[in-house]
Amino acid sequence: MAKQKTIGVGMIGCGFMGKSHGNAYVTAARFFDLPARPVLKGVCGLPLKAAQDMADQWGFEYATDDYKALLKDDEIELISILTPNNLHAKVAIDAAKAGKHIICEKPLAMNAAEAKKMVAAVKKANIVNMAGFCYRRCPAVSLAKELIDDGKLGRIFHVRAAYLQDWIVDPEFPLLWRMAKKVTGSGAHGDLNAHIIDMARFLVGEFEEVCGDMNTFVKERPLPAEGIGLSGKGGKKKGKVDVDDALSFLARLTARGGAKGDVMGLFEATRFATGNKNQNMIEVNGSKGSLRFRFERMNELDFYDATKPQREQGWTNILVTEPVHPYVGSWWPPGHLLGYEHSFVHEVVDTIQAICSRKKEVKPDFEDGMRCNEVLDASLASAKSRKWVKVKKL
Amino acid sequence: MAKQKTIGVGMIGCGFMGKSHGNAYVTAARFFDLPARPVLKGVCGLPLKAAQDMADQWGFEYATDDYKALLKDDEIELISILTPNNLHAKVAIDAAKAGKHIICEKPLAMNAAEAKKMVAAVKKANIVNMAGFCYRRCPAVSLAKELIDDGKLGRIFHVRAAYLQDWIVDPEFPLLWRMAKKVTGSGAHGDLNAHIIDMARFLVGEFEEVCGDMNTFVKERPLPAEGIGLSGKGGKKKGKVDVDDALSFLARLTARGGAKGDVMGLFEATRFATGNKNQNMIEVNGSKGSLRFRFERMNELDFYDATKPQREQGWTNILVTEPVHPYVGSWWPPGHLLGYEHSFVHEVVDTIQAICSRKKEVKPDFEDGMRCNEVLDASLASAKSRKWVKVKKL
Amino acid sequence: MAKQKTIGVGMIGCGFMGKSHGNAYVTAARFFDLPARPVLKGVCGLPLKAAQDMADQWGFEYATDDYKALLKDDEIELISILTPNNLHAKVAIDAAKAGKHIICEKPLAMNAAEAKKMVAAVKKANIVNMAGFCYRRCPAVSLAKELIDDGKLGRIFHVRAAYLQDWIVDPEFPLLWRMAKKVTGSGAHGDLNAHIIDMARFLVGEFEEVCGDMNTFVKERPLPAEGIGLSGKGGKKKGKVDVDDALSFLARLTARGGAKGDVMGLFEATRFATGNKNQNMIEVNGSKGSLRFRFERMNELDFYDATKPQREQGWTNILVTEPVHPYVGSWWPPGHLLGYEHSFVHEVVDTIQAICSRKKEVKPDFEDGMRCNEVLDASLASAKSRKWVKVKKL
Amino acid sequence: MAKQKTIGVGMIGCGFMGKSHGNAYVTAARFFDLPARPVLKGVCGLPLKAAQDMADQWGFEYATDDYKALLKDDEIELISILTPNNLHAKVAIDAAKAGKHIICEKPLAMNAAEAKKMVAAVKKANIVNMAGFCYRRCPAVSLAKELIDDGKLGRIFHVRAAYLQDWIVDPEFPLLWRMAKKVTGSGAHGDLNAHIIDMARFLVGEFEEVCGDMNTFVKERPLPAEGIGLSGKGGKKKGKVDVDDALSFLARLTARGGAKGDVMGLFEATRFATGNKNQNMIEVNGSKGSLRFRFERMNELDFYDATKPQREQGWTNILVTEPVHPYVGSWWPPGHLLGYEHSFVHEVVDTIQAICSRKKEVKPDFEDGMRCNEVLDASLASAKSRKWVKVKKL
Repeated sequence: MAKQKTIGVGMIGCGFMGKSHGNAYVTAARFFDLPARPVLKGVCGLPLKAAQDMADQWGFEYATDDYKALLKDDEIELISILTPNNLHAKVAIDAAKAGKHIICEKPLAMNAAEAKKMVAAVKKANIVNMAGFCYRRCPAVSLAKELIDDGKLGRIFHVRAAYLQDWIVDPEFPLLWRMAKKVTGSGAHGDLNAHIIDMARFLVGEFEEVCGDMNTFVKERPLPAEGIGLSGKGGKKKGKVDVDDALSFLARLTARGGAKGDVMGLFEATRFATGNKNQNMIEVNGSKGSLRFRFERMNELDFYDATKPQREQGWTNILVTEPVHPYVGSWWPPGHLLGYEHSFVHEVVDTIQAICSRKKEVKPDFEDGMRCNEVLDASLASAKSRKWVKVKKL
Repeated sequence: MAKQKTIGVGMIGCGFMGKSHGNAYVTAARFFDLPARPVLKGVCGLPLKAAQDMADQWGFEYATDDYKALLKDDEIELISILTPNNLHAKVAIDAAKAGKHIICEKPLAMNAAEAKKMVAAVKKANIVNMAGFCYRRCPAVSLAKELIDDGKLGRIFHVRAAYLQDWIVDPEFPLLWRMAKKVTGSGAHGDLNAHIIDMARFLVGEFEEVCGDMNTFVKERPLPAEGIGLSGKGGKKKGKVDVDDALSFLARLTARGGAKGDVMGLFEATRFATGNKNQNMIEVNGSKGSLRFRFERMNELDFYDATKPQREQGWTNILVTEPVHPYVGSWWPPGHLLGYEHSFVHEVVDTIQAICSRKKEVKPDFEDGMRCNEVLDASLASAKSRKWVKVKKL
Repeated sequence: MAKQKTIGVGMIGCGFMGKSHGNAYVTAARFFDLPARPVLKGVCGLPLKAAQDMADQWGFEYATDDYKALLKDDEIELISILTPNNLHAKVAIDAAKAGKHIICEKPLAMNAAEAKKMVAAVKKANIVNMAGFCYRRCPAVSLAKELIDDGKLGRIFHVRAAYLQDWIVDPEFPLLWRMAKKVTGSGAHGDLNAHIIDMARFLVGEFEEVCGDMNTFVKERPLPAEGIGLSGKGGKKKGKVDVDDALSFLARLTARGGAKGDVMGLFEATRFATGNKNQNMIEVNGSKGSLRFRFERMNELDFYDATKPQREQGWTNILVTEPVHPYVGSWWPPGHLLGYEHSFVHEVVDTIQAICSRKKEVKPDFEDGMRCNEVLDASLASAKSRKWVKVKKL
Repeated sequence: MAKQKTIGVGMIGCGFMGKSHGNAYVTAARFFDLPARPVLKGVCGLPLKAAQDMADQWGFEYATDDYKALLKDDEIELISILTPNNLHAKVAIDAAKAGKHIICEKPLAMNAAEAKKMVAAVKKANIVNMAGFCYRRCPAVSLAKELIDDGKLGRIFHVRAAYLQDWIVDPEFPLLWRMAKKVTGSGAHGDLNAHIIDMARFLVGEFEEVCGDMNTFVKERPLPAEGIGLSGKGGKKKGKVDVDDALSFLARLTARGGAKGDVMGLFEATRFATGNKNQNMIEVNGSKGSLRFRFERMNELDFYDATKPQREQGWTNILVTEPVHPYVGSWWPPGHLLGYEHSFVHEVVDTIQAICSRKKEVKPDFEDGMRCNEVLDASLASAKSRKWVKVKKL
């Protein structure tokens, strides 16, 4: 066969997201007809041993504990940034300066100001940049977007979204990095609300004003002997949890084409909703119809079409596994489900196509990431001040 | 107000079905605009005390233990027959001779031959006659019928139905009348398959041929001290169960307008399906669409419309509580559910309307009841002979 | 039989709630073993013709358009107050003075101050008083309460509740009394939030602080020619809608036995959630388990038991139709569903039992109604001021 | 790192199953800690171009159109056989003779006699052999097996299973190999019933006797211009469909430890169940509990535990994504779903572990495949003879 164009890939960070991205790069070219095949070059992680294990497991050519080594590697064109949140900005700005295309995990930055610098850097460098809001690329969510763009919902009244988990309900669960402000910025908020804020922006429109409330139900947790890290078992010493366990907020949004601030929004992120494992849910109600999605049934989209004869109206449970559905045609026959990791494959597919195309654009980009950070900042501030806060557009 | 026409009602039998019918007569005129208001005259039961209690509770004018007393009462125009199955024929034929309109519980008779005599009697007497297949009058089932009659399913390929219960899984559950052949004819078969056979006839068409299998999982049960009756606690002595605990069968049906025997059917009745309380389910698949109903969610009908754009196809879960849905307009606002007993109210409503109308027809009538008995007979015979059996039309 | 004690009943108001209460009085004594049988005496409504129709339909002995006539009737012991909200206080206080026991529809009053006077009146008169939060008496909700009282949820973290309807999405839907502030006080708020506030108080505990947001999506509607009333068709003239179409709020609650204000709450009422007909939902998350209920599947309760072996953990969908479940034993066999109106029957059953018992107490009483009004007042105020508002206990 | 042991893999056949197996080999070593890493050596397919494309896409070292070339390649230890059914036996027997370990797609053979020869060949060659009933390795199904093996269901009464699809409802859908008897043996029967027969054997026990019915709803279909193949568009000429479109059957099974033939079974396979895309469902009812699975919600298992307090009994919807669940720990955190292809990865993982272990056994093996063919043969024969047929154990 004619030799296919390749695209060198570097990965910075090698935790849970390392697996998601590693798998995506390996799998994308197997199922999709790509203009360039990703080649796994280098992976950076700490300690070096972790990076080396990842390299061995996923077939990277080399491992390093110095991310700049990747930036200097001319064969690397595309970088995945998967570090803890507090390193996103520094690494991304450096990567942009080095001319690398970037997929950066969410939330894009510790705050909107930091995100703004990242946006400036990628714009200046004129590189393809994606903010890793993977749920946009679940086929059911992509289909929701199509239906909304086709006007199936009419004027939008409500968006209610929740991202419910329960993995730290046990007060003996140790204090890990995701509960340490310095590293993560916030708790459930930045981790989970980031996703549903992006989902609402994707499906509905821009946030205008927010008013939040937050709580830390377990105020102290056992510290791992080795300190606060990615994982580890709690010891006898306890440390203070300085982030939220849950943060919910009211919002006003402006739907695309709608009156300013007319849409009412409700958002909730928590790690204390026992029985909800990864319950990322959204419902949007409009004058002509409604849509409902929840990740724990990620292959399904519920669509209520209020324009049908009333006798036949109901929530249509669309099994989003048909060739006509977004991304699905490249996978399996109808009724053969996709899983969590497929959304990352779709990110990689679209990013590589952007890199190889003339437009070099892909969404959600860093600007979307910044918009999300603006809403995160405002809702966190409102939860602290216990006042409505306008979302400031940077 | 102008005095409303009334219609005198007698009830023969006063077990669980006594409550269902008693309630239906009391309630029908409250919610529906009837041409005549039912007035509860007499109730017959054994022992007399049970009948008297029923009379007191439900407001019948008198109680008796001689059903002929009701048949002689000129003020009674309509009789509900709620006795054990082995008495249906005798009582119904007598009632017909006395010129009473009849609602008779299902299965209509112990067998088709007996049913045929009942049909002859009601035809001769020219009275309104209904076989009590109440599930036809769940609004969701009535809506299913409407959709099928409107051609929404196209050519029908499959009907699969099951009626699953689990109330006698415990081998210490006593031997009651529903497990005694002499009184009941068969076990789960006549009790439960009767309903789904009628449902399939209602929605699809006529049965041509059947092949069944049956089992009695618990072959002996504690006998109640007072003998085999409506209720009671099992004693130390055991008795033989001489009816089926479960009976399933394959079938071929002819859909209305379809080729003879072209539809494949699957039917199953059991009292041993742990976790299924009253799981009366049916699914019909056609070339243009499909329908699904299950009684444990009786206010819902699932409709798959294969003529819609493929992108939007899915099972539409219709909440059958809109004014446009059958019977619903007389009850509550949208989203306010109906319960089990409402189907009996609908039976009474339609029967009274038939009595007062010129046509004097209501479905399912005794002929439908006989058709059902024919299928019950054939499938029971096939389960015994372990051979396919043609359904003989009497 | 020994003549049963009776209890004379009067009903003031004869709209949709008239049917609910009328049916409840008629049905209660049929299915439940009551210490006294309700006898329908008089019904009051405007115009008199409507009251007369109701009397004819439901079997009241007489109709009137002067509610004081009922209060003077010595044979009436129990009054249902079903008027528009703005008349509740006046009528209830008069009824209390007349020594009648009262079931008053929700919201109890136009505001907490008014409710306080009602509480004072019923206390002074020492009568049985119930606030008509019917959903407490859906068996599934009663079971939820039992499970929580038995400690099955542990420490409670979250309560999220929504009451979603969609009946006025069409801007041509006319301006009826439920959209007129003078008569109704508020829109979706008092009508729907009242229910879920009561549900949260019932299951979790007291509200401390709230912060709300509201919107009126359709600001003008066609006026019925005959003016703003219970029903009617919109004419050409338009009138201003001066109540909310939707009101959502954040809340802090104190769980019974829990730290003050530790529970995070989210509440939303709307009549613009297309596809949701009567979607009254609540979920409560605790350290040991969670519960979920939604009225459109009112016979089901979802219970997550986090104390089970992890391998078997999941949301258990309890079909609340077993004899061991609250109220159910008096109705039908397992798996035979109840409907909307049954909760009203349960209200009547419990009220009559309270009247005939020594304690003469039944919950939710007017004090519960007042507590609900306090939360309604605070959340409405917060939605107007766009500030957190403490719930003031009167 | 120490160089990991590798295991050379060859693949014969490169249609839809080629993707499934190719992906499984590539992915297995990324997520699981394997004793040997699979290395993709050669792929065989017709025409050669198809094999070459597959090789390029999936990283096989070479392509061939002569499967014996793979059998001669000493570096290949493990062969996936993914050809149309009529070639399984020949290829597998040759592969066994060549000493290759084998994963062979289902149904194992065209009939049990053929399967018996395959069993003999692999036994003689003493190689690891797996029959590709992938659904056993959906974590939810594996969990079901664990629960049954732990006695959670007690005495088993019923198994009902269906495999419903709808992809050829359109009579203009062309005549492909899956509708041609010579190549495929039977239609929906061998394709779909094979899976649910295996599932029932896996979860319940052995088949004793069966009685089936079948139909071909569309008797002629457009022939592709290029003849009957894997894909293609129908032309103007029509060809006769000589296989079943649907085949359902009654069965008697013997549960492990249970009385002979005591379990009642119901099985149905069809490609004409409009609205069902890949609805592979099974329910098993026992004296202590029940289990329900359906592939369109493959990450969920419903478990009814009848030993719990009755008040709390219900169907527990287990989201099978916890580290304690089979296979899941190697993938993602709780609540992050798996998809269709993961079951193939699990097949590869277990096969490689078997190859590297001393026992060299993995289930389902060819003997299981033969047992399935026995049931397929008997039910097909019974559908033709329209008589009950005993399942003959070879």
